[in-house]
Amino acid sequence: MELPSILIIKMNNGVPDILDNLIDELSRLPGIGRRSARRIAFHILHKPPEDARALADALNRFVDEVRFCSVCGAISEADPCGICAGDDRVKSVICVVEEISDLLAIEATGSYKGHYHVLGGVLDPLSGVGPDELNIDALIKRLEVGGIEELIIATNPNTEGDTTAMFIAKLAKPLGVNVTRIARGLPVGGDLEFADKSTLSRAIENRVPQT
Amino acid sequence: MELPSILIIKMNNGVPDILDNLIDELSRLPGIGRRSARRIAFHILHKPPEDARALADALNRFVDEVRFCSVCGAISEADPCGICAGDDRVKSVICVVEEISDLLAIEATGSYKGHYHVLGGVLDPLSGVGPDELNIDALIKRLEVGGIEELIIATNPNTEGDTTAMFIAKLAKPLGVNVTRIARGLPVGGDLEFADKSTLSRAIENRVPQT
Repeated sequence: MELPSILIIKMNNGVPDILDNLIDELSRLPGIGRRSARRIAFHILHKPPEDARALADALNRFVDEVRFCSVCGAISEADPCGICAGDDRVKSVICVVEEISDLLAIEATGSYKGHYHVLGGVLDPLSGVGPDELNIDALIKRLEVGGIEELIIATNPNTEGDTTAMFIAKLAKPLGVNVTRIARGLPVGGDLEFADKSTLSRAIENRVPQT
Repeated sequence: MELPSILIIKMNNGVPDILDNLIDELSRLPGIGRRSARRIAFHILHKPPEDARALADALNRFVDEVRFCSVCGAISEADPCGICAGDDRVKSVICVVEEISDLLAIEATGSYKGHYHVLGGVLDPLSGVGPDELNIDALIKRLEVGGIEELIIATNPNTEGDTTAMFIAKLAKPLGVNVTRIARGLPVGGDLEFADKSTLSRAIENRVPQT
């Protein structure tokens, strides 16, 4: 049987621009490569258009309506945010976190009902992040107003987090504020045998009375 | 030092609804869990709002403007699609694929310049997919019009793909069309030693003269 010869030819008109455009935009998101972006685009194709419109609306509303709280630096729909404005929170305690995602992680535990202060990063001289790049001035102003009994520093338990914690503690202590740091030790459900040395040392050092 | 007691209390006002809503919508996409959705949301927060708006626009445009080609069943901005309407394609060859993503995979190779026909699935009686659920009638009508010399069946090399290929071949051959099936064998760059038995058997069976 005689088959028509099929020459090699480059063309792109098989892929509509609107699909290519969607794949481009999706693959700009973190953790999404072109393969995943393509899979998502075809998923959208097979779902009711309302689903994609709902996502588009959520994106537009998010960037249009998101505000940063002028008190604590958290994201919010209002300024001040729900936590800073709330009557149900303990006003005398401020928890200092690096990022808004840390704030949300603590809120998700449901075990804290004080206020927050979001630094927007940590001191990292090598990357050019000094105190002026962080939301530290505003924190000191909050402490100077008075009424704050405790400042819980919840920066990450690494070198930069520790340095930042020490720096803030040095500024806050002269203002008569108790400065604490969230505990380091073995994670709940963790295994002593497999804990790294410094975590285990910390866990022994920071031991608490058995109740 | 006396610390204020922090009672356990459940609350949600720390997470703005617009963020929660965005995370919800993102996590409906395939391969994106709530953790990834959250990471994407915070990525968007730290990027210019134009980026999120561009994605929202791409989503809306996609679902608003995407059409299915009435000839081949591919997605397109116009009807008929760029391939069916194009003068630069070989009109006498039709490649039958299961899904639009298969069409795009073949287009991406740049080595095919014929036309396509998208079935929208494969015969799968156990899942209730018979010939009526697929875009087969339209294919037969295209063949009946005449002028088609070859039908290349490019369904997946599995049981359902093979069954569908045989079913279509049975309908197409009486219409005087050469029916071919894309080759099965070792993948380019693959390793003979690690090939599965049936792939290796096929590769031996479908051997071609060494040029």
